[in-house]
Amino acid sequence: MTTYRIALIPGDGIGRDVTAAAWSVLQKAADKAGFTLDGQEFPWSCAFYKQTGTMMPADGIETLRGFDAILLGAVGWPAEVPDSVSLHGLLLPIRKSFVQYANIRPHRLLPGVKGPLRSEGFDILCIRENTEGEYSGAGGRVHQGTADEVAVETSIFTRTGVERILRFAFEQARARRGKLASVTKSNAQKFSMVFWDEVTRKLAGEYADVEVTSYHIDAMAARMVMAPESLDVVVASNLFGDILTDLGAAIQGGLGFAASANINPDRSTPSMFEPVHGSAPDIAHQGIANPIAAIWSGAMMLDHLGEKAAAAAIMAAIERTTADDVGTIQGKDRTEAITAAILAQL
Amino acid sequence: MTTYRIALIPGDGIGRDVTAAAWSVLQKAADKAGFTLDGQEFPWSCAFYKQTGTMMPADGIETLRGFDAILLGAVGWPAEVPDSVSLHGLLLPIRKSFVQYANIRPHRLLPGVKGPLRSEGFDILCIRENTEGEYSGAGGRVHQGTADEVAVETSIFTRTGVERILRFAFEQARARRGKLASVTKSNAQKFSMVFWDEVTRKLAGEYADVEVTSYHIDAMAARMVMAPESLDVVVASNLFGDILTDLGAAIQGGLGFAASANINPDRSTPSMFEPVHGSAPDIAHQGIANPIAAIWSGAMMLDHLGEKAAAAAIMAAIERTTADDVGTIQGKDRTEAITAAILAQL
Ligand SMILES: CC(C)[C@H](C(=O)O)[C@@H](O)C(=O)O
Ligand SMILES: CC(C)[C@H](C(=O)O)[C@@H](O)C(=O)O
Repeated sequence: MTTYRIALIPGDGIGRDVTAAAWSVLQKAADKAGFTLDGQEFPWSCAFYKQTGTMMPADGIETLRGFDAILLGAVGWPAEVPDSVSLHGLLLPIRKSFVQYANIRPHRLLPGVKGPLRSEGFDILCIRENTEGEYSGAGGRVHQGTADEVAVETSIFTRTGVERILRFAFEQARARRGKLASVTKSNAQKFSMVFWDEVTRKLAGEYADVEVTSYHIDAMAARMVMAPESLDVVVASNLFGDILTDLGAAIQGGLGFAASANINPDRSTPSMFEPVHGSAPDIAHQGIANPIAAIWSGAMMLDHLGEKAAAAAIMAAIERTTADDVGTIQGKDRTEAITAAILAQL
Repeated sequence: MTTYRIALIPGDGIGRDVTAAAWSVLQKAADKAGFTLDGQEFPWSCAFYKQTGTMMPADGIETLRGFDAILLGAVGWPAEVPDSVSLHGLLLPIRKSFVQYANIRPHRLLPGVKGPLRSEGFDILCIRENTEGEYSGAGGRVHQGTADEVAVETSIFTRTGVERILRFAFEQARARRGKLASVTKSNAQKFSMVFWDEVTRKLAGEYADVEVTSYHIDAMAARMVMAPESLDVVVASNLFGDILTDLGAAIQGGLGFAASANINPDRSTPSMFEPVHGSAPDIAHQGIANPIAAIWSGAMMLDHLGEKAAAAAIMAAIERTTADDVGTIQGKDRTEAITAAILAQL
């Protein structure tokens, strides 16, 4: 029997609630499909930081390297630990160390779910560059605290980084409806974004079967709201992808429905699966967090591991649940109620 | 009788159509209110570039300096003139040379207009920093065209620039419903955005009557779609404001309704008023461009010039028109039909 070793990092706040829910669904799906998920839980989180002074041990990345995949809940507790510590000490190093350069986020309405838009028939796959660009961390400040202060923040784009994410996106488009939207702001950012557009045009020649269109980020934000059904695969830089996927989460009914995969497509290192939402301290441990984003992320993990049938079974169970009973989704004890319903459908 | 000298730059494409419409409404409003708008038209545009090799004459900025305000249509004709020429040769130099640091864009649904959201009761004023930040134009590329290519783009934020736009936004919030949302991404951009947040916190002390909240750009994009009615004044950097105002245009029914003012609040140089939309070559000169964004921008110009009553009269005429007859707005000859309806209501 195939066994997959999964590193579980529930993290903080509702991250803990939804990871537990997702894990129970994954276990049942594995049982039924005849493989084993061997989970090992790591307490790395803001609570861990407060005890130890670090978000994860010095050999944390090396420890994770031995796993087949990582399932993460959410990290952060801003009232007690600054984001600069919590995110830059755990989430972002994992993405970068394991070269999880493709952050994949599907945006569509689950059956029965009402979003904020009148439009309902969209099915978008956002692909966000996840390792460089606007979140390179390069910059500095001079004359700090004085009237003359200047702060600079430098976006760094490499051909390696841009080409691999675009190539990945072209492949995804080819496997879907054959349409790719590449998002930049080359009319105002003349170095980084013009470069991205050039690489897009170069690759377009190789993928003549994919219809690729370049959009500016402002126009794309408007399009996701005004004509989301016109989009198939959308590829964007780290920052632009970050923005568009929260917007995608919004149009699909909220962050409670937004799943994500941080993928290293060459599989030399583990990939990480996490709901897009944060730790939401205000609603932590009250049993009201929507676990669907985490469960969906778990399905993406199985799919990535090659367990396509089990992944599809989870998605079908999620969809039957939302179609049957949106009441549960809006209910008070929804973490448990939704999880139970999905388990029953599985 | 007071006379205002207005520089008219219709520009390209539908910019020409809507500027003519706005000008006729402005003239009637001025007549009725008893002041004079003395317009001088400048042909600066992509067509001008193709004749002369420049978007505006070398002394263009000096020429404009003598005016009380600038009314611009739209600039750009990408099929023939690259954006890098058209925008960086006209629109952006005007914003920067005249220190029009506050780009103001109102987002609300006009009566009768249906937007893409189920939600209809929002009234947001976006304030975008307009002179520095992510559109500073600093950067470069090395190893161009090779596998080792790296492109960098540097955002530059100065205390002068950040403090003045935040101060302006606090003042606007004070004059409205007293709520200010300041938008950054300080959990991922540790220099520029942390700096912006620090300046926000410092000013918050001076404006204790304004309730200020900091949001990350991703969360704000989602909020504008999921809970736009929770927002009053939103202030953001050049790039973030650019994105949020196209999103704002989308939720208010489209770019045809999105007005803007590029303001130098100290009034030492002319301010510029322009619809948010571009030149839309595909629908140029067919009489179908919606002139409301341009007419609304004209009303913002009168307001800025101190002609509050005339500005309010134009807004009332626009609102009566949309309330009475949304059919016209969706019609085929709408540039003329809408303009005529607004003139009749004035
Ligand atoms: C928490 C934050 C650093 C993170 C990001 O911007 O990458 C989050 O917003 C996301 O989208 O995964
Ligand atoms: C045309 C472009 C440079 C411009 C900008 O980004 O400033 C436009 O998008 C706007 O919002 O006014």
